[in-house]
Parts: sequence; C-alpha cells; structure tokens
Amino acid sequence: MIVLAAGQGKRMMSNLPKVAYPLAGRALISWVLEAVRPLEPASTVVVIGHGADRVRSVLADDVVVAVQEEQLGTGHATQVGLEAIPSIDPGDTIVVLYGDMPLLTHDLIADLADLSSGADARMVTTDLDDPSGYGRVVRDAAGQVVGIVEDRDCTAKQRLITEINAGVYAFRAGHLEESLQEVSNDNAQGEYYLTDVAGILVGKGDRLEAVMASAQEVMGINSQDQLAEARKALQQRTNSRLMESGVWMQDPDRTYVDDTVHVEPGARLYSGVHLEGSTSVAADAQIGPDVFAVDSSIGRGSTVWYSVLRSASIGEHCEVGPYASLRPGSVLEDGAKAGTFVETKNTTLGKGAKAPHLAYLGDATIGARSNIGAGTITCNYDGDGKYPTEIGEDVFIGSDTMLVAPVKIGDKAVTGAGSVITEDVSEGALAIERSEQIEIPGYADHREARKAATEPED
Amino acid sequence: MIVLAAGQGKRMMSNLPKVAYPLAGRALISWVLEAVRPLEPASTVVVIGHGADRVRSVLADDVVVAVQEEQLGTGHATQVGLEAIPSIDPGDTIVVLYGDMPLLTHDLIADLADLSSGADARMVTTDLDDPSGYGRVVRDAAGQVVGIVEDRDCTAKQRLITEINAGVYAFRAGHLEESLQEVSNDNAQGEYYLTDVAGILVGKGDRLEAVMASAQEVMGINSQDQLAEARKALQQRTNSRLMESGVWMQDPDRTYVDDTVHVEPGARLYSGVHLEGSTSVAADAQIGPDVFAVDSSIGRGSTVWYSVLRSASIGEHCEVGPYASLRPGSVLEDGAKAGTFVETKNTTLGKGAKAPHLAYLGDATIGARSNIGAGTITCNYDGDGKYPTEIGEDVFIGSDTMLVAPVKIGDKAVTGAGSVITEDVSEGALAIERSEQIEIPGYADHREARKAATEPED
Amino acid sequence: MIVLAAGQGKRMMSNLPKVAYPLAGRALISWVLEAVRPLEPASTVVVIGHGADRVRSVLADDVVVAVQEEQLGTGHATQVGLEAIPSIDPGDTIVVLYGDMPLLTHDLIADLADLSSGADARMVTTDLDDPSGYGRVVRDAAGQVVGIVEDRDCTAKQRLITEINAGVYAFRAGHLEESLQEVSNDNAQGEYYLTDVAGILVGKGDRLEAVMASAQEVMGINSQDQLAEARKALQQRTNSRLMESGVWMQDPDRTYVDDTVHVEPGARLYSGVHLEGSTSVAADAQIGPDVFAVDSSIGRGSTVWYSVLRSASIGEHCEVGPYASLRPGSVLEDGAKAGTFVETKNTTLGKGAKAPHLAYLGDATIGARSNIGAGTITCNYDGDGKYPTEIGEDVFIGSDTMLVAPVKIGDKAVTGAGSVITEDVSEGALAIERSEQIEIPGYADHREARKAATEPED
Repeated sequence: MIVLAAGQGKRMMSNLPKVAYPLAGRALISWVLEAVRPLEPASTVVVIGHGADRVRSVLADDVVVAVQEEQLGTGHATQVGLEAIPSIDPGDTIVVLYGDMPLLTHDLIADLADLSSGADARMVTTDLDDPSGYGRVVRDAAGQVVGIVEDRDCTAKQRLITEINAGVYAFRAGHLEESLQEVSNDNAQGEYYLTDVAGILVGKGDRLEAVMASAQEVMGINSQDQLAEARKALQQRTNSRLMESGVWMQDPDRTYVDDTVHVEPGARLYSGVHLEGSTSVAADAQIGPDVFAVDSSIGRGSTVWYSVLRSASIGEHCEVGPYASLRPGSVLEDGAKAGTFVETKNTTLGKGAKAPHLAYLGDATIGARSNIGAGTITCNYDGDGKYPTEIGEDVFIGSDTMLVAPVKIGDKAVTGAGSVITEDVSEGALAIERSEQIEIPGYADHREARKAATEPED
Repeated sequence: MIVLAAGQGKRMMSNLPKVAYPLAGRALISWVLEAVRPLEPASTVVVIGHGADRVRSVLADDVVVAVQEEQLGTGHATQVGLEAIPSIDPGDTIVVLYGDMPLLTHDLIADLADLSSGADARMVTTDLDDPSGYGRVVRDAAGQVVGIVEDRDCTAKQRLITEINAGVYAFRAGHLEESLQEVSNDNAQGEYYLTDVAGILVGKGDRLEAVMASAQEVMGINSQDQLAEARKALQQRTNSRLMESGVWMQDPDRTYVDDTVHVEPGARLYSGVHLEGSTSVAADAQIGPDVFAVDSSIGRGSTVWYSVLRSASIGEHCEVGPYASLRPGSVLEDGAKAGTFVETKNTTLGKGAKAPHLAYLGDATIGARSNIGAGTITCNYDGDGKYPTEIGEDVFIGSDTMLVAPVKIGDKAVTGAGSVITEDVSEGALAIERSEQIEIPGYADHREARKAATEPED
Repeated sequence: MIVLAAGQGKRMMSNLPKVAYPLAGRALISWVLEAVRPLEPASTVVVIGHGADRVRSVLADDVVVAVQEEQLGTGHATQVGLEAIPSIDPGDTIVVLYGDMPLLTHDLIADLADLSSGADARMVTTDLDDPSGYGRVVRDAAGQVVGIVEDRDCTAKQRLITEINAGVYAFRAGHLEESLQEVSNDNAQGEYYLTDVAGILVGKGDRLEAVMASAQEVMGINSQDQLAEARKALQQRTNSRLMESGVWMQDPDRTYVDDTVHVEPGARLYSGVHLEGSTSVAADAQIGPDVFAVDSSIGRGSTVWYSVLRSASIGEHCEVGPYASLRPGSVLEDGAKAGTFVETKNTTLGKGAKAPHLAYLGDATIGARSNIGAGTITCNYDGDGKYPTEIGEDVFIGSDTMLVAPVKIGDKAVTGAGSVITEDVSEGALAIERSEQIEIPGYADHREARKAATEPED
C-alpha cells in the first residue's frame, strides 16, 4: 500500500502551515499518518505546497515529501505525489487522503484500503445535514455508486442528496494513473480535480465503492475553531479509552492527556491535569488538580498536585506539591517528597528523603532519609559554570542553608540554620556558619522617634 | 420503613469496590443512603457480595452490612437483607434499591415509599429511548401496571414499550416475604430474581403502582465513564442550588463543590475552585481562580486565590495567595494576610498580621499587626521534635530571619535581615545576627581572568 | 437617537443591584450600553429604581441616571426617562431597552433603530419553544404586526403563537410621548405598562414593525444561573472572534478573555487562562496553562505559564513562571526571566536579566544581563517606608543575598551567597558578609544520645 497525503501548507492567520499545528501531542498531519501507520504502507508521500520545510520537520524520516510548486488542483497534487514514488505496480493500492483530517481513524482507513472485494477504487462518504457546496454521491437503484456530481452541476433532485464525497480514496494504482491522464483543467479555476477521477472510473465501467464515515471523522481543519474542536474530539477519544481501562477522572472535559501517554488502571486524575509526551502514571497514583507533566514517570501510590514536572522521574509513594517545579533530571526515589515551593533540577532525592518547602535543589544528589530544611539552596552556579552538591544519607540540612557547590555533606551530618557551607562537611559533624546574636534594647522607641521626626506635622 | 440497598461490590478495573468509590465528597453508596436518610428508616441494611470491609468503612455506624456469600441473584440478595433485620412487621414498608444509583433523589424515594394509596408495592420506572435489554412495564387500558416482561420474553409489540423497570421498589413487608418464597431459580443463570416478585404480586391480585423517574435519576454506575457523568450531574445539582441561593459562579462547569460545603449568598467563586468536606465560605468572600479548600472556613470579605487550604480557618477581610499553602491548624484572624509563596502549619496570624511573601511558618503564634519579612522561616523541627515560636504584637521580623524554635519575640521587637535568632528577644528590642560587609575590589576582572584561563582557546 | 435603558436595580440574593454585577469584564448594564454606543446616541438615560448610586458608579460620565422613585411600571419608567432629557424633537428616535439584557448585539439595535422604512415604531420579537407568560405578537395575513396580546388575554389560538415581544423598542419620539399619555394603570398591579403603547400605536393606524432576534440575544438576567449562562455566551463570542483572527486556543471553553483584551493572531492560549482589563498579548506568545493577567502586556514570543500578572509589562522573548507573581509596576525588558517562586513589584528587569527562582524583588531596577540568585530578597520595607534597590548591568547576585534598601550595586559586581548587603557595592567588586564555617565533629552521636535520653524507655 502506498499513501499520498495532500499536506496543505495553508496557514490559519499565523505563520505556521496548518498541518504542522500542534494538536493534542502531535502535529495535525501526524494524526493522519498515525491512523495509516498500522497498515504498514510501502511508501508514504506528503505532497505539500507552501511551508515544506516546516512540515518536513514534524514528519518521520521515512515519509517522502513532494513539493507541489504550482497549485494546479488535487488531481495535479496526486500526480506530483505519484512521481515521488520510485516504482509502482499497477496492482498496488494507493490511498489518497488529506493531511488536515486528524480525526480519520485507523479502522476507517483499513476498511477503505481493502480492495479485496474486487473494487477498483473505494471512496469515503458521509452524510451531512447541510450538504450544500459538496459533491453528491449518486447511487443507482441497487445502491451502487455511479458517480459524484459537484454541487454546481446538481439537478434539483440531486441537490437533495445528503451523502457527500469526503475526498479520501483508495485506488488500484493502474486505474488511478490511467484515469489521471484523462482529467482536464477545463474549468473556471483551471485546475485538475481528483474528484473527476471517480467519474472517469465509473464511466469506464470500473467498480467504485463507498465507505461511510461519520461527519466528524472526515472533518477538515480550516480554522482555529475547527482545530479546537478536533482537539476536543481527540481528547474525548483518549479519555474514553483510559476510563474504559479503569482510570478515574474527576472531570474528563478538563483532562488533557496526549495519546502518547500511558496511564494505568486505578490511577486518579483530577481536573486541570495536562499529561504530555512520554509521560506514564502508575496505578493508585493521584494526579492533580492542576498538574502539568511532560516526559515524566509517576510511580504507584504517589501524589502529585498543583505542580509542574518536566522529564522528571517519581518513584512509588512519593509526594509532590502543592506548588513544586521538577525540571529535567529530577529523580524522586520511593517515598521521597518535594513539597511546597520546591524546585529541583538534575537532582536525585534518595529513598524517603524530603524537601518539604521553599528550596532550590540543582545538580544535587541527596541520600536516603535526609531532610532538607526550608530555605535551602544549592548555589550551583557561579555565573560561569554549574557545580554539583553531594549530600549523604540521614543528613539534616538546617533551614536556609546555602550549599556553595562543589560541596559534599557526609552521612548523618547536620548544618546549622542560616549557614553558608563552602567547605565539605564530615560524616556525623555539625557545620555552622554564624555570628553572635546581639540585642539593642529600646529600638522600638528609636523607630517611633525617627518616624515622628520624618512625618510632617498637621 | 426499612431500607435494603444492594451494595454491589463489583470493581471497575481497579481494586476499589465500585460503591465505595469517592464521588463529589461522598462514597457512591452514601449518596443513595443520603437520599433515604430524611425518611428516617428504622433499619438500613446494605447487602454486599465482594469487598464488604471496604464498603463497611465508608458507611455510617447504624447501617447494617449483610454479606451475600453466594451470588444467587437480586431476589436472594433481598432475602439475605431481610434476614439481617431483627424483627419485621408484615405492615412495614420495605424499600429495596441499588447501591450504585447515586442520582436517586430524596423526593423520588419519598414518593416511592408512600403506600398510603393502598398499594401493596410500588416500583420506579423510567422511559428510555432505547429500552432494549430492560424489563418492560406492561399496563392495562386503565394505565394500571399488570406486569413486567423481561426483554427476552417480550412479544414484538411489548418490545416497543419504552417504559422500563428500574429495579427500585417499595413493598409492604408481608407481601414481599410471601412472594419471595415463590420466586424460583429455574432460569439460565440459576438465580433468584427480585423482578419476579412483581409478577407474583400482580398474579395474586396485589396492587402494584409505578413511580416515573427521569432516566438520569436511576442511572446505575458500571464504568468510570458513568461515574464521571454522575459526578457532573451531582455537581450541577449542587451548583444550581448554590446559585439559586445567590452565590456567584464564574463558570459552574468548572466549580467543584461538595454537597457538604456551606457557601453563603453573595460569595463569589471563580473557575477552578474545589471546595470539599466541611468547608464554609461567607458572604462577599472571593474564592479562586484555582483554589483547593478542604475542611476550612473562609470569612466575610476575604480573598483567597491560587492557593491550597487544608483545615484552615480564615477570618474576615483576609488575603490569601496567590500561591499560598495553608496546612492544618492555620488560623488567620480578621485582616491577616498570607501572601505569595507562604506556607503555614499549626500557626495563628493575629488580627492584621501579615506574611506577604516567601515564608514558612510552622507551630507559631504571631501577634496582631506584626509583619513577617520575606524569607522568614520558623525552624520548628530539629530532626526529632517540633518546637513553638511565639511572636508578639507589632513585631517587625526582618527579611530572611531564621527563628530557631523554641523562641519568643517580644511585642514591638525588630529582627535584622538575615539574622538567625536562637535566643528570645525582649519587647521593643532590635535583635541582629550579622557579620561585617566587606568588599573585594576588582573581583570582576579576576572572574574574567579565571574564565579565560579555563576556557580552551580556539 | 436617544436611548432609555431601564436599569433594574433588583438584587439577586446579594447586596449588589443586578445590573451592576460584573460580567466578563464589564458591568452587566455596560454590555447593553456598549451595544448601543457605536450608534452615537445624543442622550443615554438609565432609569433606575433601587441602588442608583451603585449603578451610577459603573456607568460612563455622559450617561444620565434618572431615578424612578415609585415602581409604577415600565410605562412610567419610560416617562421618567423622557423627563430627564432636556429637549426632544418629535422626529427623534427613542430606543427603549432593558439594562439586564447583556447579550443584545450592536447589529440588532442598529436594525431596530432604523426607522427609515417609514415605521413609527419597531420592536424586537423572538420565537420561544415555550412562549407561556409572554405577550404574543399578532400579525395579519400580510405579516404586518397588528398588536401584542398579553398571555392572560390570549385566545386559545393566540396562545399557540410562539413569537413574543421582547420588550425592546425604537419609537419616533412624538408617537411615543403621545401614546404614553393614553396608557392607563387600570390593571391588577396598578402599573403603567410600556407594552400598551404598541397596541395604542397600532390602534391609531401607526406603523409598528418587528425585528426578529434569537432567544439568547434578548435573554434577561434574573438569576445567578442566567448570569453564568450570559458570561458563557459572551465568552464564546469573544473566543470565536479571536480564533477567527488566528489565535490558537487549547480549550475555548476554559479560556476567559475580557472583551477589552487585545490578542494578536498567532498567540497561543492554553486552558485556564484569564485575561482581563487592558491586557494585550502579542503574536507567538504562549500563555498558560493557568495564568491570570490583568492590565498587562505580553510581548512577542514570550512564555507565561502558571503565573499571576497585575499591571505588568513583559517584553519580547521573556519567560515567566511556572509560579511567578508579577505585581503592579513590574517590567521585564526583552529576554528577561522571572522564573519559579519569583515575586516582583514596581521592579524592572533589564534586557536578558534573570531571576530564575525563589526571589522577592520590590522597588528595584536591575540592569541588563544581571543574574539574581535564588533566595534573593530586596528588603525594601522597614515597617514605615519603602526604599529603592539599584542593580547595575552584568551583576551576579549570589543566592540568598539580602539587599537592604536603599542600596546600589555597581555594574559587574558580585555578592557572596548568604550576604546581607547594607552598603553600596562598587563596580566590579565582590561584596560579602559572612562568618567562618566551623565544624563540630561527632554531633550525630550527640543527637542520638540526646534523643535516647529524652525518649521514654519501653
């Protein structure tokens, strides 16, 4: 099987070609190719007019991009696509579809591409409440498709037909190539229309079959509004699949899970959760409300709420948030905690280690069961380079400790609150950097006097 | 009145028996029992097959749990339930319902249980667009119910009936017990069906009446999808009730308020607000966007936004957030403020006291009008125990003050920025812990040189 | 043209007159006046019963408020409104509408007010599925409106009419004034009804035309539920307009943009975004998830997520959040960053300056390319006044630096981690305030021993 996707480089009022628009974790056109992929096509060609470079950047390496230099219609685009394929056997099946129909399903394409009935071509049709503007599918008394009549050419009776041509086809290669030769551009736009191939095939007595799809499946995206609608439909598909498998969702309408994410049955997702990329969530984990996680893993029984995770790895029975930011390279081993107003980056918290509040931990390894006091900061950056902090097991880092990297804190060591630690600390030692507390009595009276002196009298 | 609820211990792809699933602040089955409660039944029995312990843990103490060891059908379950009741008078009203119908309303059950018309039994029915699979309600010309015909036994004409049996009944006890004896298990599944009782009653000339309900009210929960749908329906009921009473909601579809929460008229809830448990919100309070509050009270005229509150008590005209976390035991007296990146736990902020930013306050009492500088931390934990911090009235805690508990700061005292306070501070005194600031000139040149030295030449 | 809006001071279970309720960035009544404004009426009068002061406070200065002391009906209210206009020409067009219909559109009012066909009056009508309770519009065989019949006076046939009177009119002034004289209060309520004017006009042979509107357009707000519905409808209008112009929205149902906000094509809004007041968002900016911005500007290519902005100005290619709070007077010049747990107020971050984490910056100016370490706080408040901090270009502020204002840090200067800076720092110098780190060995053993001593033996 060979797939030709008309890439449609058009823009929707922005600089991005529309098929390259992000949509629930994939580029728009990638949804189409994803629906095709399980059929393992021998070649996949995307024909693109404008913005070929941007489109190419979102495609897999084995997808061929054919540039349609002149916009001479869908028939011409098909021709351009065919020319990009090194060798075609007349018996090959060629699927031609639009790159802007992200709701096409694998089942539909598999059905379409199945010419085993002896059909020479199959086409996707759908029923529209308001079919005006679309080519109508004309069938004979036996229900056999006998032609497609463009809206402008319809008789009054044909105009009442609600079954329309969705523009998605599977052809026996030889029949397609032959018929394409006969398509003319003798029309108002001076373009070659792929639609005409259907008429030509039927005219020759070839067998053209129709596969019915829902109107939603063949929705093309031509506006931001439709893009938002498609995102919602894809979200509902993903969420239905997950709920069917046993995932609890507080509010599926507000749960944004990419198709690429893995969520185990028994996981619980509260509202306002965004899960993207290669993220995975294990059973009994509770995520949300209001969590963003991309390319992160969350282990069994862990709780993550009101937090942002990027390329973070969370073990089992961990706690994250509310209000934590775990940046790339953050690792929480089982039972660890990154609590409130805690940011980590390229840092490992060992088993049962806890940073409950107000901390920045970067380029650090923290041993099991260690406790990081509030206000602790790894001073990992000196303006030029980044340096590591190593904290042992069972360490107690006092509040507001500055760990000036590179620095090592031995097992069971303790640091005094407010200390700037620039030297390594030995195992079991207390390290402290502090002056003496002094008290100046009567300071409140002094403040009052100062205030009175600076305030204008009434 | 006696209530028998078939508990249905089935699971929905997770370890939790489905009727124990949390649903908008109550276990699924508790919604059913809540609808029954105002009728003050003499006994309430939940019949449960699997997971009895988990189900029992979500039930009130006065609910009897009867375990149905063998799954021999709904008739058998009813028998098991009846046997769990010490004494039944033949004239008692027995309501039999499903534990997985959380949308049953009090009004419906009250209507159902009212046998004052002389009915021997009443049943709930509903109209379904697609009734296939359900037992149809057959009525005579006068509209009197004359039987229930199971789907498989329907004539072609009966199959067109859209009124179906919802499986929820009220019986005069004597009639129920007598009829149950006659139910046989002579069917494909070898089970005893409660449905058969209806036919037996009518056969005996007993009077069976039907109470119509909406399809939504009798929706049983058999999937995560239906659970989410039920949550949404319950949310809409709660939100409609609150809006009717005069609560403003920016977006009711995104406002998650447990049925147990009290919100006064004139309160304003922005989108993304979760209010749970025994939470209360007073008039003119503004909550949200994006607030989670459980078991907390928020006083008149207070503003809480982008924050998390757990067992916190907020007085009148307070400010919380954006980005505050108030943990259990947090008390804000009137006019107090817990601002941005502030976490409190077991801490009282007196009248007009303010912690505007970046602070951790644990096990502390803070007097009226005191100001807590940014970066202040109560060092309440030494790795073993937790210790208190007492701050008087009109105190000015300088930025980044570490208060090493146990410690007391007298009224009107001041602490210098960056001080670690380990000793008590007297009333009106300035306490400071600090070294001298020294300056090393030309350091920028040194850095440049060092950088140049370590960078490879091109 | 002259506009009379019946203000309707009624309350919806709260202290606020309903037309003064906030609704998607405007007071309820301001939506009505906004629909009228492009027609440039010579006078606009709001007739108000209760709460005139509160209503006046939300109106533009050129709107006249006429107080209807006694509630004698809509006809009387119209009379009160007319009396507030200094001079009326009989040929003037008088538009009379309700102050509680925020979904009225400019197009509808423009159509209504156009009497160029020779009509003496025009009225807005709509079709309702359930018209009961409303005055029906009676037309003759030619489709000409011949009267309005109140629900209670309808014949059985008239009761079937679904076109109802929405209560919104345009009159030729002379005709209105004349007819109003003839309206009587001979009815159950003893009130003067404006509706009667229509009948009187037709009775005189005047020409009354009808303008059809959708039911939504003429929805009056009488409950919190309807207020929420109106907010949703206005949100959809704004979001549709923005998407049509090329703005990407992840989830338009969860995107809250005031009508007064400017968003450029190519900007991307994730879910949970609130944009209010005079906020503007440039192309290629990415906002959200979960951002609140009021009266703020966000430049091209900037990213703002999980943050709160109030009167902040963000340049191009800046980064804000996750979890930043930018308070009034915050300015980020191009390429600047206010990262995680960063709060700014009345502070400028110069080009490329960065405050990546955990900082409070108030009343500060920070030069280009300077880096603010985690834990940095400008101690701008001494309990009485606020003082400025000036940081030069290419400065490196070490972690946990307290900048005790007023204070100046010269270009290229460096501060040591944990320093309290009270004196100005020279250009290129290193300033440090720190004691010596000391180490007490064996402290872990001491802790163990202490713990053992204080714990009760079993």
